[in-house]
Amino acid sequence: MPDGDMLHTASLATPSLTTSLSASSDRAEPRAAPPSAPWQVISARKVAERQARLDAHPEWQLEAEAVPDAQVKDVSTITTLQLTARELDIVTKHDATALVEALRLRKFTAVEVLKAYCHAASIAQRVTNCLTEIFFDEGLERAAELDRHLEETGQVVGPLHGLPFSIKDHVKVKGHDTATGYISWAFKTVSDKDAVAVDILRRAGAVLYVKTANPQTLLSLETNNNIYGRTLNPFNRDLSPGGSSGGESALIALHGSPMGLGTDIGGSIRIPAAHAGLYGLKGSVARMPHAGLMGSHDGMDAILGALGPIATSARDLALFCRVMLQYEPWLIEPPLLEIPWKQNVIEGEGIQKKLCIAILWDDGVVRPHPPILDALKRTKNALLRAGHEVIDWEPVDHRYSWDLITKMYFLDGGEEYRETMRKDPPVPQSEWILAQVPNDGKPYDVADIFKINLEREAFRVKVATHWNATRSRTGTGRSVDAVLSPVAPTLAPPHDSTRWWGYTSYWNLMDFPAAVFPLGRFAPEDNRSLDVSADLPPVGQPRNPEERFISEQWNPETYKNAPISLQLIGRRLNEERVLGMLERVEEALRLAEGSGSGSDKNFSCVTL
Amino acid sequence: MPDGDMLHTASLATPSLTTSLSASSDRAEPRAAPPSAPWQVISARKVAERQARLDAHPEWQLEAEAVPDAQVKDVSTITTLQLTARELDIVTKHDATALVEALRLRKFTAVEVLKAYCHAASIAQRVTNCLTEIFFDEGLERAAELDRHLEETGQVVGPLHGLPFSIKDHVKVKGHDTATGYISWAFKTVSDKDAVAVDILRRAGAVLYVKTANPQTLLSLETNNNIYGRTLNPFNRDLSPGGSSGGESALIALHGSPMGLGTDIGGSIRIPAAHAGLYGLKGSVARMPHAGLMGSHDGMDAILGALGPIATSARDLALFCRVMLQYEPWLIEPPLLEIPWKQNVIEGEGIQKKLCIAILWDDGVVRPHPPILDALKRTKNALLRAGHEVIDWEPVDHRYSWDLITKMYFLDGGEEYRETMRKDPPVPQSEWILAQVPNDGKPYDVADIFKINLEREAFRVKVATHWNATRSRTGTGRSVDAVLSPVAPTLAPPHDSTRWWGYTSYWNLMDFPAAVFPLGRFAPEDNRSLDVSADLPPVGQPRNPEERFISEQWNPETYKNAPISLQLIGRRLNEERVLGMLERVEEALRLAEGSGSGSDKNFSCVTL
Repeated sequence: MPDGDMLHTASLATPSLTTSLSASSDRAEPRAAPPSAPWQVISARKVAERQARLDAHPEWQLEAEAVPDAQVKDVSTITTLQLTARELDIVTKHDATALVEALRLRKFTAVEVLKAYCHAASIAQRVTNCLTEIFFDEGLERAAELDRHLEETGQVVGPLHGLPFSIKDHVKVKGHDTATGYISWAFKTVSDKDAVAVDILRRAGAVLYVKTANPQTLLSLETNNNIYGRTLNPFNRDLSPGGSSGGESALIALHGSPMGLGTDIGGSIRIPAAHAGLYGLKGSVARMPHAGLMGSHDGMDAILGALGPIATSARDLALFCRVMLQYEPWLIEPPLLEIPWKQNVIEGEGIQKKLCIAILWDDGVVRPHPPILDALKRTKNALLRAGHEVIDWEPVDHRYSWDLITKMYFLDGGEEYRETMRKDPPVPQSEWILAQVPNDGKPYDVADIFKINLEREAFRVKVATHWNATRSRTGTGRSVDAVLSPVAPTLAPPHDSTRWWGYTSYWNLMDFPAAVFPLGRFAPEDNRSLDVSADLPPVGQPRNPEERFISEQWNPETYKNAPISLQLIGRRLNEERVLGMLERVEEALRLAEGSGSGSDKNFSCVTL
Repeated sequence: MPDGDMLHTASLATPSLTTSLSASSDRAEPRAAPPSAPWQVISARKVAERQARLDAHPEWQLEAEAVPDAQVKDVSTITTLQLTARELDIVTKHDATALVEALRLRKFTAVEVLKAYCHAASIAQRVTNCLTEIFFDEGLERAAELDRHLEETGQVVGPLHGLPFSIKDHVKVKGHDTATGYISWAFKTVSDKDAVAVDILRRAGAVLYVKTANPQTLLSLETNNNIYGRTLNPFNRDLSPGGSSGGESALIALHGSPMGLGTDIGGSIRIPAAHAGLYGLKGSVARMPHAGLMGSHDGMDAILGALGPIATSARDLALFCRVMLQYEPWLIEPPLLEIPWKQNVIEGEGIQKKLCIAILWDDGVVRPHPPILDALKRTKNALLRAGHEVIDWEPVDHRYSWDLITKMYFLDGGEEYRETMRKDPPVPQSEWILAQVPNDGKPYDVADIFKINLEREAFRVKVATHWNATRSRTGTGRSVDAVLSPVAPTLAPPHDSTRWWGYTSYWNLMDFPAAVFPLGRFAPEDNRSLDVSADLPPVGQPRNPEERFISEQWNPETYKNAPISLQLIGRRLNEERVLGMLERVEEALRLAEGSGSGSDKNFSCVTL
């Protein structure tokens, strides 16, 4: 499986073991494999269990003749071909914000909404291998309860009443396994408790029904593990949907969920959102609930991750945050900051009419591929046309930031990963990241750790000072309002080829919020010559092995149909301002390009 | 000096070496002692340099016949006996808030205000040994500049225009030494930069003129070091003014400064404020600027300190915070939280008319001495009379909290302290704290550190859950609004006798804000029998060695004239709410006891 190709992965999705497992109940007792079982046995049992949950609802499964051949790369329209008109109305014409409104107004029942998403999710699983735990029946029970409640009281139970919500595998959901892509955790991590964010989702009325794939180690910007194999990009199955929240992105892009829960410590929300043409928000640490995740390195707080939403509209990102903070999670999760959600800022309060946005064209390590530079240029032109100001963002220490953040990822020299994976061979992206372990794989001592923390603080001061200094270059009297940046140097990459995280992990190190938004999909036939020479000097020889690898990888055909995305970055704890400014950026793009911005849920408009 | 008594300390304050140093300039080049010099030589040079700065202004020095004998314990009125009526008006009739208003209205000039404080500070130094770096002339130059500016423009330079402000020694002030009570740092730590908070003070118009004593290691709730010897409590020189910000408390209590900068990682603002009858605020970590401090363990962030004010009124605490955040320090100091100061909360917004306050009578480790229990009882009765609700706070894990926080203080096994103090023998309180070093003085490894961080988080969850659960015991429909607690189990202790930090360090571990406020001074003749039996079961045998030591220490005569204080504690990041509620508590006390609350700057009313 570490070197499994797409077909291998696809075959795993229809294993021969299904008859050995109860197909009728969501609450079948998991039968743990003996601890000494080889990883293939554990994988087969997990996959079989998952298949049994799907088989319990044959009405939602793709009929044999509708299953696309492995040669079919673009499976993004397959859901829409299978669903009824009413199902399609639910899953393609409503973002989460519209859906909760429709549910509240009883335009749809919670049960019919969930059924539509279960149908799409079953298909999404079949064609991209994006799900882990499946509990449709549990969800249907809850949806029926919610319908009864609304019927009887006339009131919704909360702001997400009846909204299906998908959950990344490593986030604890009561009663379900939290295998997190690790063979050694499979069947052994059935949670007796919801994560704080999941608990809030339930209290707000969201309906849980699936968990989604994440990669082995979680430290991967693709999604592959030895339990389920790899997850595929629905727009081009030769490509990755990104990671580590890649199950979410594949599922949501195929309309199998209106919104999902991801986490990001180096790009794990933003990369999958970008590679699947979705919206994603990585907020600052401790703004959103974070307790109740399985993962390695509990207690390591030199660098922390952020939990956040992946969705189909910018306003859904705000909806998620607003609901999370409405429940005052800081009262039960001590690290969280008591900073209530400022919806008025999203609506424009304190956001100046004329913004100055700095564009990061090239981080000095790996120049982005042409479609990404072109997207920056399109956005620049749109911003200028809309009356905003644009300056260049001079990159600061991106290579250094990577060397520094990997020290924090691996303070223990990678020991905990090695221990967890003793009987779980590394998939290729695990191999790649474990090759980044510094300090010769030895743990740092306390003096090293103090020093690393100081390096982190010095880095943050340096970048903040750099940001402040832009004031002398803007015409607004302020420093720049935001940075517009690539999310990665490539579009969704061919499997196992991610080599540079610097465009995302940099902002984890800074703890600055960043929102990803889509700008259409890439059509190789539109690969016109890109005129960014005015903005960018030529690189010449590759500056380093990563840039060599990535520049040699460029071939328009490889990225056929891949979504194009960018990220907008603001100052720490300014999540609302980032989303408010994103609205301006999208407005500028709409003005400049007609309906061409990514806000069209169907991605029917492929623009370059 | 480690065992130096008061007389020894007093003699150090008038050394015989003054003639070897320039007495005329604030900017005399310090003459560093050779690195191999014994600590006594370095100490003598620092003390002589300080004396020279005082000698440059004989007009402010106490005349020989006015210097009290060592037998005189209460020196708290000595400033008022020496100052002119106008000087007295400035330093005793105005808190900082009133003073900046008077300066703005040109009732006083900045120069005359500073001169009055320099006069009082010179006397305070003579009788309590509270100062370290003295730069009166630099302050006078700045004050004159400010006067000219106001004269010429009609505008103040900022909200603290002309306000003298004293700075704890370990906080960097440009051009001055930052010896921090360490022999090995003396003469070697002249800062080329202001700490962020100091920089803001300057920009706001504050006038700097002195730095104040802190103890060796800073990890002490008294103030003693081998450079200057110990600092004395002006109300009773046999007692400590507290620490580690004890130079501040002695100085401010003697009207030698209207407000000062302290820091607190275990009680170091609150204890000196309490022992000197002042107001002090330890806010949550990262609310106030904190960059630019000298201290041990830079880069250790398992537990962090908070910088905050010591002042003579509750409203001055708010003034300080408001001014600090007005300058948006989060833009230059990345760890700071962008949470603007909410003055409207202090003014009552969102603070319910009827509060429910929980009283911590006894932390389960060391029962407080009778005057402290009595102060709790008085405040309880006053709160009830004012219509508030009062319940008991059940203590949770105070002993455990101490064992846990000492692990974080000494993650490196105390190595850095031992290294810094190689030629600097530990003063008694350093000896005591270094005897608390866990793990047999060995550094923790990375796995230990992750575990300690998890223990900290579990502790925080446990206490937060406990706080939330009070909801079932209040009549307000909310959990308790605040906890009212002793600051220490004793009033200002005899020198070298502090044995229990649990009443303060607990709230550092929780990162909850706490404000200290005064309730008068203790008169042994008023040591009436305290009837707290209804509230408290008898302890019986001491529960542990600390309690045995402290209970045996109780003798009314020992604490003659010592200030009585309490602290009010709120939820994390609710600094404004704590100060808003403190106003209610003080109002209740005023109602119940007439003018007896501590808000009288002269402490003329000794109540019990």
